[in-house]
Amino acid sequence: MTGSDDGPGDDDYPPGTGPEAPWATDDPAWPVHETAVTWETPFFTAGQDAVERPSGERADYYWLDPADATTIVAVDDGDLLFVEQYRPRHRTTTLELPTGGVDASESPRQAAHRELREETGFSADSLTHLESYIPSGWLRYHRHVFAADGLTPGETELEAGEAIEMVRVPVSDALSRARATDGEVMENALTPILLAQADGYL
Amino acid sequence: MTGSDDGPGDDDYPPGTGPEAPWATDDPAWPVHETAVTWETPFFTAGQDAVERPSGERADYYWLDPADATTIVAVDDGDLLFVEQYRPRHRTTTLELPTGGVDASESPRQAAHRELREETGFSADSLTHLESYIPSGWLRYHRHVFAADGLTPGETELEAGEAIEMVRVPVSDALSRARATDGEVMENALTPILLAQADGYL
Repeated sequence: MTGSDDGPGDDDYPPGTGPEAPWATDDPAWPVHETAVTWETPFFTAGQDAVERPSGERADYYWLDPADATTIVAVDDGDLLFVEQYRPRHRTTTLELPTGGVDASESPRQAAHRELREETGFSADSLTHLESYIPSGWLRYHRHVFAADGLTPGETELEAGEAIEMVRVPVSDALSRARATDGEVMENALTPILLAQADGYL
Repeated sequence: MTGSDDGPGDDDYPPGTGPEAPWATDDPAWPVHETAVTWETPFFTAGQDAVERPSGERADYYWLDPADATTIVAVDDGDLLFVEQYRPRHRTTTLELPTGGVDASESPRQAAHRELREETGFSADSLTHLESYIPSGWLRYHRHVFAADGLTPGETELEAGEAIEMVRVPVSDALSRARATDGEVMENALTPILLAQADGYL
């Protein structure tokens, strides 16, 4: 476990992540001969690299670069705080944990404080960093998972178009709700809950 | 837990996934007025949907559609079988579990049998389905996680360009190796290991 609030300040990207993500550098054994950006949206840039394998063969590797994301594991009065929302991309209502992108001006921890407040109304006294990982090999971004302590209730501040409703689930039922087969199982509920259980937060 | 080898045949997509994934349908409350394909690669199609929110406002939602993937949790002689490989997209060597795409002609279970054999050489007598989930909200695909039983060693069959090496890790160290901070933490090691622990397989 790294990066608690007692740690060295707020720019707590783990080694090899954030601004120093490995894909910002090059590997001489697998040289990238050309990078082409094929798609730019308000949320990510996407494209492909022409890479030379050690065998000398060339191949294209495709990537998508969204902003890093944070997900927060927050327990209030014995309940884990979920968010239920309609996901137009998936045409379904999903059960997730509070999640949002890290803005360019923020650290992951600052983003986690903000997203928890916006989506649930709760402010946290402190956040403990549980893990940072790449959510899919297709993508180049990290999900930074934090556990919240010392919650104070308040008002939500949803962004335009966010149809989010907070759902309280007793901690003992949280994993089975995240895994329920009457809908899609979302990584940003499943993995953070399992991590928090493994680390003794749930 | 669903879909063991004792289950109803081999086309064991959980409800709402696979050919009946929810994004194959439409939701009248959030009508999709236009779908544009912006990027076609040998591995996925990507594009955007113009969606009308219940408020009447329109917004674009971006998506990427790779094939479903399988990941296999396999223990031989007290060791969990990892695969270490260079990932040109991420410019780094990663520690993952045996993973691969589900071909159009395969069920997830058939793909899992094949990928385990190709990447580790081991054949499994049976595979138990642990979970299927969406690995990132940006993407429309599922990862199907299976636990392997009854392993028989054999030869690997790597595809062209796959620089994969099997790494054996004692089960007791598996989670900490997957979470080691000297490299990137990959979801397809982290989540399947946590799932297998939660379900009593590790």
